[in-house]
Amino acid sequence: MVDSLPSWHDKPRHRLVEFVERVTTPGVDFVPPHERIAVFDNDGTLWCEQPNYMQAEFVVDELRARSAQDVEFASRTDVQAILAGGLARLLRTQGLGAVAEVLLQTHAGVSADDFSRRVAAWFADAIHPRFGVHYAELVYAPMLELLDYLRAYEFTNFIVTGGGVEFVRAVSDSLYSISRDDVIGSAVQVAVARDADRVDVVRQPALLGSPNEGEPKIVNIAMHIGRRPVFAAGNSAGDRAMLEYCAAGERPSLCLVVDHDDATREYAYQSGAVTAPDAEPIIETAAREGWMVVSMRHDWALVFNR
Amino acid sequence: MVDSLPSWHDKPRHRLVEFVERVTTPGVDFVPPHERIAVFDNDGTLWCEQPNYMQAEFVVDELRARSAQDVEFASRTDVQAILAGGLARLLRTQGLGAVAEVLLQTHAGVSADDFSRRVAAWFADAIHPRFGVHYAELVYAPMLELLDYLRAYEFTNFIVTGGGVEFVRAVSDSLYSISRDDVIGSAVQVAVARDADRVDVVRQPALLGSPNEGEPKIVNIAMHIGRRPVFAAGNSAGDRAMLEYCAAGERPSLCLVVDHDDATREYAYQSGAVTAPDAEPIIETAAREGWMVVSMRHDWALVFNR
Repeated sequence: MVDSLPSWHDKPRHRLVEFVERVTTPGVDFVPPHERIAVFDNDGTLWCEQPNYMQAEFVVDELRARSAQDVEFASRTDVQAILAGGLARLLRTQGLGAVAEVLLQTHAGVSADDFSRRVAAWFADAIHPRFGVHYAELVYAPMLELLDYLRAYEFTNFIVTGGGVEFVRAVSDSLYSISRDDVIGSAVQVAVARDADRVDVVRQPALLGSPNEGEPKIVNIAMHIGRRPVFAAGNSAGDRAMLEYCAAGERPSLCLVVDHDDATREYAYQSGAVTAPDAEPIIETAAREGWMVVSMRHDWALVFNR
Repeated sequence: MVDSLPSWHDKPRHRLVEFVERVTTPGVDFVPPHERIAVFDNDGTLWCEQPNYMQAEFVVDELRARSAQDVEFASRTDVQAILAGGLARLLRTQGLGAVAEVLLQTHAGVSADDFSRRVAAWFADAIHPRFGVHYAELVYAPMLELLDYLRAYEFTNFIVTGGGVEFVRAVSDSLYSISRDDVIGSAVQVAVARDADRVDVVRQPALLGSPNEGEPKIVNIAMHIGRRPVFAAGNSAGDRAMLEYCAAGERPSLCLVVDHDDATREYAYQSGAVTAPDAEPIIETAAREGWMVVSMRHDWALVFNR
């Protein structure tokens, strides 16, 4: 199955293959199939998160559309600040919370099905500012191969994202062959809406619990999956807790960190934790813990399938 | 595939087969595989819930074990009331909440893995007071066949139980071939516990949100699965909302209600909602809505595989 990871250079490919063969071959390190749980962060781990989170771009486009139809909404200071091109600044200065706040209000009362349709429509239309392609083209080819490779060995792949769970679910099957129920993320509160023959679930203007970053990733994995993963991949300090949880199990485990060091083919940056901006860079943590650091520049023969 | 449901008499079997063949055959009613979501209540729908919920019996046995080791705990009035044989009365007069309260305190600080092991050990030991067999033998044979039958047609089966999610997860794979992550239930809050090399998830003495009964079943299906089911099975007024949610979708759907009318082979009783004792009996709702009512006495050739 070494042929299964063609976009990986030899050294990292061998490390992945060695781990997977070790835990799937009868012996002391064997992990039974139902315990082969693999968890993947999404932004910056499975798809490109630069220059802004895809979901942030979606929010801006949704704000623009709503502002065109709703004068009162368009007159709001926070909405105007974002639409004047200040999204990156708003994210940097006020964090995901401020953006999430606007998102929550923009989509309050929208049914889960309608929200999914709007996300899918955005993916079909919107174009990445630098690469000039649809955002769906900006999934990392080597990571898609890794998902397939793990599946072939009876791993179950879950996405554990700091992004909105419904945003990622709208495309998880088409992009990653990961079903909606295998996506865990930051969630908004929902309520049941009924009239005559309608029984529906609609979004409320508030997050449910904490954003899914840091220790909440551990808690949400335990609540949703009910098992500790044996494989975990991330790219930011916000994934550290999830990787530590994986590494601390009794089973053999592999923790993988994507290092964005390729300004030519993608971006070169250090990805911090949104909810803990001063946290130790994950690459330093990974070096100390002996986790697998994947250099985009040196370890991947190909970044995108295009 | 009609042979797949041998414990069902002809009439109900034909209704099930007609539905499944209709939605899996190309045509106007075709439902693609990723939308073939089937949800099952557990207590009284997949396994026997009389004379007490299995989880309640587990709690009593856990209380007894802890009382033998912990004098202070043993001296509590509520613990003594339960151990003196008053569980059924406590459930009836004070509801699941009072029992849950004791359960929560009994297992506070226990790790998710340890809790699972204790549940599995209980299933290996405990004996049902009337049938004299292990509780695992008291799963309904026709429902196991139905789970297999739906799986063969690419449905994904989920358990959506009012019981504790970790209690059911401990045995969902061995009893039903349903993986832990496909179980949704009432949940306790958990916290991350760390020391030296340990990163673990431990139970807290409080429920997370509402018990998973009534409309919370809809909300939790939306949060966890992210799709509306096309097949739903229950047996109590606490399942009504979930069945209505299924029935109100745009896709064809089948809602099934188990009627406990067989005092000889199982029990004859009307199952109410724990959180809404005065709700309309589900059999009356089902009749009005045209849902499929399964008479245990008349529709099942066999109740248990023993």
